[in-house]
Amino acid sequence: MEIRAATRADRDAIWKIFHEIVAAGDTYALDPKMSREDALAYWFRVDTQTYVAEKGGTVVGTYILRPNQLGPGSHVANAAFMVASNVQSSGVGRAMAEHWGRAMAEHCLAEARRMGFRAMQFNFVISTNTPAIHLWKQLGFKIVGTLPGAFRHLERGYVDVYVMFRSLP
Amino acid sequence: MEIRAATRADRDAIWKIFHEIVAAGDTYALDPKMSREDALAYWFRVDTQTYVAEKGGTVVGTYILRPNQLGPGSHVANAAFMVASNVQSSGVGRAMAEHWGRAMAEHCLAEARRMGFRAMQFNFVISTNTPAIHLWKQLGFKIVGTLPGAFRHLERGYVDVYVMFRSLP
Repeated sequence: MEIRAATRADRDAIWKIFHEIVAAGDTYALDPKMSREDALAYWFRVDTQTYVAEKGGTVVGTYILRPNQLGPGSHVANAAFMVASNVQSSGVGRAMAEHWGRAMAEHCLAEARRMGFRAMQFNFVISTNTPAIHLWKQLGFKIVGTLPGAFRHLERGYVDVYVMFRSLP
Repeated sequence: MEIRAATRADRDAIWKIFHEIVAAGDTYALDPKMSREDALAYWFRVDTQTYVAEKGGTVVGTYILRPNQLGPGSHVANAAFMVASNVQSSGVGRAMAEHWGRAMAEHCLAEARRMGFRAMQFNFVISTNTPAIHLWKQLGFKIVGTLPGAFRHLERGYVDVYVMFRSLP
């Protein structure tokens, strides 16, 4: 697998992944009906570095890295990750998705260090997204905040959301 | 004092307050050198309700109210407040600023309820901003998260930041 900066040529593949993930309504506070144009504008925002993970010529995941705040808060990075959901339906698929997710997260932490960020923060980790929480904890993130009922889960209703944080020494 | 929806005619007054507050570098994670154009675009964003507090025909404060997240997170409001800093230098001025700040915050909570928000969240309350923290606690907000060293204070260096939250039953 190769992880590299995304280009305009990756937009179709990114949109496919993005749309599946957001439409599922269980991990992102984004409009499930968000248009392709809005989605790509969000994922390729001017302050954002966008990456893709490629396996055998196919984009299997994508992530973004950017300052979480402006000015006096810009030393803390924010990131978001998406892995193609069509691989996640089987046990083998889930293991692959986990592997890709971890590889992207490690790549992201290295990139954030390289760019001089002092810490990384996830603002909105849905408490029911246990695989993600497990991975972030393994990678040194701690839950530093809990937002009561801040996410309306498509199946489970209002669920808590975590803020997760780690420094980058 | 009257609190009302802001109009285009309020832009000069808002920019004056905004610029003073942000340039001071002690309460907002915004670029202290943010341009007038960027500042007004941020304060009048398409998803944002913008208000001003007026006293004797002069705008003495401004606040914004908007969804803190999109889609399945859009039932939680976010808000930000600014009071003219030129009144804050004397004891009487500080008391007035506190009075205006509280009046705007109460107006904001009522507006948020009226618009159907279920809760309100402040993402980035600087831990050294004790008057604001005191006011939010008095108004029912709790600290639900602490972001270590997430704000580079112009005078004090890296300081913690709080996430504050309250439901709107």
